[in-house]
Amino acid sequence: MQTFDLHILGCGSALPTRRHLPSCQVVNLRDKLLMIDCGEGAQLAWRHTGLSWMKLGYIFISHAHGDHVFGLPGLISTMCLMGRTAPLHIFGPAALRPFIQCVLANFCRDLDYTVDFQAIDTTRHALVFEDRSMEVWSLPLNHRVPCCGFLIREKAGLPHIRREMIDFYEIPTWAINRIKSGEDWTTADGTVVPYTRLTTPADPVRSYAYCSDTMPVAQMSEWVSGVTLLYHEATYADSELAFAEKYGHSTARQAAEVAHAAGVQQLIIGHFSARYDDERVLLGEAQAVFANTILADERLCLHLK
Amino acid sequence: MQTFDLHILGCGSALPTRRHLPSCQVVNLRDKLLMIDCGEGAQLAWRHTGLSWMKLGYIFISHAHGDHVFGLPGLISTMCLMGRTAPLHIFGPAALRPFIQCVLANFCRDLDYTVDFQAIDTTRHALVFEDRSMEVWSLPLNHRVPCCGFLIREKAGLPHIRREMIDFYEIPTWAINRIKSGEDWTTADGTVVPYTRLTTPADPVRSYAYCSDTMPVAQMSEWVSGVTLLYHEATYADSELAFAEKYGHSTARQAAEVAHAAGVQQLIIGHFSARYDDERVLLGEAQAVFANTILADERLCLHLK
Repeated sequence: MQTFDLHILGCGSALPTRRHLPSCQVVNLRDKLLMIDCGEGAQLAWRHTGLSWMKLGYIFISHAHGDHVFGLPGLISTMCLMGRTAPLHIFGPAALRPFIQCVLANFCRDLDYTVDFQAIDTTRHALVFEDRSMEVWSLPLNHRVPCCGFLIREKAGLPHIRREMIDFYEIPTWAINRIKSGEDWTTADGTVVPYTRLTTPADPVRSYAYCSDTMPVAQMSEWVSGVTLLYHEATYADSELAFAEKYGHSTARQAAEVAHAAGVQQLIIGHFSARYDDERVLLGEAQAVFANTILADERLCLHLK
Repeated sequence: MQTFDLHILGCGSALPTRRHLPSCQVVNLRDKLLMIDCGEGAQLAWRHTGLSWMKLGYIFISHAHGDHVFGLPGLISTMCLMGRTAPLHIFGPAALRPFIQCVLANFCRDLDYTVDFQAIDTTRHALVFEDRSMEVWSLPLNHRVPCCGFLIREKAGLPHIRREMIDFYEIPTWAINRIKSGEDWTTADGTVVPYTRLTTPADPVRSYAYCSDTMPVAQMSEWVSGVTLLYHEATYADSELAFAEKYGHSTARQAAEVAHAAGVQQLIIGHFSARYDDERVLLGEAQAVFANTILADERLCLHLK
């Protein structure tokens, strides 16, 4: 099964604590790296992942609040020092553009690569990026400023060849890719062997959804229906529901309700308020609604299966 | 003796490592906090000092390179979240102004305090700030962009009262401050007791000088002559002298030569290049010239005596 990993670099909320960095994640999909949000310290936390800077091609920013973007200046500068020449593509709300322009104009005049910013319409659930191996969709969120989450879905792979059948029929190498693509095989005596006998089905398509920062959004469970892994913010416990509503956030229970309604495989909660020295209160409230929930933590790496 | 502490929050150079954060220091002088440089992660490192945000009134920035300023956005935002209302004064080269304006305009529209930026002429050795207890002087440095260090000198305190003499002459409380200020005491029988008999001298004046980033500057040893503690950048070992000259930095030996020529009490070197896994090579080269040299390190706190 090809790589589809989620690295948590930061899962705190706006106020820094001794335990959590602000929001930042890296998705490794078939050795291509995508960053989601880039809070202060992102480049410092990156050093602990062992990932290559050069494989980072895309950054997706949910919204223009400092705890989701203040790592960008350092990241952009450092990749220049590291000798980057490949373009860096940043997707985010339009409000982010002046900050990126300011950083580039004041600190990165000698950049050896281009930073390409593309504004996202955060009010639409739409395809914002795709390549051969994945699609990235925006997920409209309900926060105090324009904000969207992201759904990353790998594209279906090809079926797997059944090596013993290939050997049995003495099928030459040149025919393998045709069979994987759905062509049947005709033997020397004219027998047609359907490709389904020569292959096993492709791996199931995996998907990852990121929802932070947001109050509950009615359509979310439909948009993230059945995803392999859902990261949902759970800034507060239920006792702080009033704060959650005031500041445009979710409680752990509300996060779990999305996971339950969407029938996701696993839920990971994060964006913890600095008030919690121990997030087990959040975990407990989420697990009461959706059992397969875990807590995000820095240096955690999850393999999507 | 009143507090005069140096807290090292970051002492790496531009490239982040697993061991060092970019440049940031906090000076605690009689419970007033001054920050010097503010690299990414400053607010995160601050949490480990146990210092109060509210006592930070002044930030001095040496130059507008990212590894010395990218912590400002997060720091400014966080102090707003923490309920700050007192003005924050930032001193630095004029090139810093558009970055601060951009951060304030895009992320801090609801700030409950003012951020007052004052441009420093980095080419002059001049007084840039003073209050009742200290003076801060600029130290022109020689880097690739306008850059200056800072000399923080406490003002002379008053002499200490000799309690046993006060008791002996039965001097009333109201006279104490006059005596401290240099007035003699006349007893009931008309005997004049010189104030020098009633006091011991004030504590010696302490001073701290910060020099980063820079190539050697001819007049520096004169400007920082006899300081209690000198922080001097030592980005490279002697074997990388060519890099030091190319990028406008100093070697550990050059840092120690300043300390030696200036007759400082102690030298602390920092701004280590990411190439050194072990900075003892830098320490050795510095100590060969100036024995009382130590290595900077995150979470180090030095008490000036």
